[in-house]
Amino acid sequence: MTKYQLFEQIKKKESFLCVGLDSDIKKIPGYLLDNEDPIYDFNKAIIDATAPYCVAYKPNLAFYESEGVNGWKSFEKTVAYIKQRYPEQFIIADAKRGDIGNTSEMYARSFFDVMKVDAVTVAPYMGEDSVKPFLIYPDKWVILLALTSNKGSEDFQLIKDEHGERLFEKVLRQSQEWTTSDQMMYVVGATQGKLFEDVRKLAPDHFLLVPGVGAQGGSLEEVCKYGMNSSCGLLVNSSRGIIFADNSDRFAHSAGEEVKKLQKEMKEMLSKYLK
Amino acid sequence: MTKYQLFEQIKKKESFLCVGLDSDIKKIPGYLLDNEDPIYDFNKAIIDATAPYCVAYKPNLAFYESEGVNGWKSFEKTVAYIKQRYPEQFIIADAKRGDIGNTSEMYARSFFDVMKVDAVTVAPYMGEDSVKPFLIYPDKWVILLALTSNKGSEDFQLIKDEHGERLFEKVLRQSQEWTTSDQMMYVVGATQGKLFEDVRKLAPDHFLLVPGVGAQGGSLEEVCKYGMNSSCGLLVNSSRGIIFADNSDRFAHSAGEEVKKLQKEMKEMLSKYLK
Repeated sequence: MTKYQLFEQIKKKESFLCVGLDSDIKKIPGYLLDNEDPIYDFNKAIIDATAPYCVAYKPNLAFYESEGVNGWKSFEKTVAYIKQRYPEQFIIADAKRGDIGNTSEMYARSFFDVMKVDAVTVAPYMGEDSVKPFLIYPDKWVILLALTSNKGSEDFQLIKDEHGERLFEKVLRQSQEWTTSDQMMYVVGATQGKLFEDVRKLAPDHFLLVPGVGAQGGSLEEVCKYGMNSSCGLLVNSSRGIIFADNSDRFAHSAGEEVKKLQKEMKEMLSKYLK
Repeated sequence: MTKYQLFEQIKKKESFLCVGLDSDIKKIPGYLLDNEDPIYDFNKAIIDATAPYCVAYKPNLAFYESEGVNGWKSFEKTVAYIKQRYPEQFIIADAKRGDIGNTSEMYARSFFDVMKVDAVTVAPYMGEDSVKPFLIYPDKWVILLALTSNKGSEDFQLIKDEHGERLFEKVLRQSQEWTTSDQMMYVVGATQGKLFEDVRKLAPDHFLLVPGVGAQGGSLEEVCKYGMNSSCGLLVNSSRGIIFADNSDRFAHSAGEEVKKLQKEMKEMLSKYLK
């Protein structure tokens, strides 16, 4: 999917919501566990209830890998379901991969050739040759970790170099030599508040994938105020707040209600901050 | 496996070799492709031929994930085979994971509870809470990326902060506040040469996982000269140079010959540099 197509979807749905499919088998409603593939059934119901109000889905691989081969199957089936039923949705494999060149090539093959997702999250620590193999696929995206939403983001990402440049800023600046905003996004946590301004100074045109609204406590208004650009430039993710809103047999309905609320807020934000 | 047990194995086998099972389906001998599970069969033959001369195996997940569900099966079967036939071997899932706390918990569960490997490689970019969930499993290890073997290691890992401390040094120093050398190792590329001295200043007692000997061009002698400590403290990995030494039906025999050569060199290094 191209940047233009993504923005078209955002305008059409008046939403820049990404639903995080962190489908922990220990947290899905118990009655599903008798099904042959509980995680897939859970995901399908969530997707059907939320698709009209969001533009992207982000399954986090950790929650699938923890179930071994079966989890991997659930993941593949989930991606296939979205692609078949809701081809307009942007699919992000939240995998935070990154390895030496020949190995990153394999990861890129996994996600783009085999699983056919639109984007994969990548960790920058190993530098250019660990990221570039993901960039040879046209209309596929790297979403590079810049400033994450967790407390540990302070440990290394905020380190200042001799010239006063922080590590996340160096990541933002240097990675723009590798490709354009048509193939790269950045992860910037909603919990980072005013640091969004600093991110936008360095990456005014890029889409940002923003986790941390909801369970992690980030503010949507603040993210939009400091982060929105003329193509919206934001994919705001919520996972647990949506998919585990309700643990009864009405979980999908409740997830739908949650995303409707978020979509309404996002519509407001678009009319207020879209430049 | 404990540090003591690992050192015992090293002394017994006079080897600190880790065989990297980067079993790319496009590179394994063609005649295996008709088998039901070519990668597993390839690995089994490689393992049987190399086990007497090495102390560890390191499957890199990328090469399994790229085959989707089938690759994941090959991976699980390979780990199970090593554990059953060669329980003295240290098994490293080279996965370079790392995510926010609740997600890293899931990865830890995948690798330690489900797959039962001894160690997993983890990327440090997201800081303490992304690493700690891996440390609650007794006798299981985190192998943290410090100074990798690839060219891109220069992009961020060598950045100096205001006080002249480089990022990889900060990673080495700060992560020692999270646990001891009984549960943490560091990845330091063989291509980093004299920087091993700087690593050893900060982490004198830790085991280092050293990729980059062989195909990537690092020198074993240099690694040992600057990196060996009183418990050896090195697991030197070679992947392509061993497993793809020969593409005929004698591939396992050739792999065995390669590891015998390496084991002989390692025996020499141990007598020369073990402090």
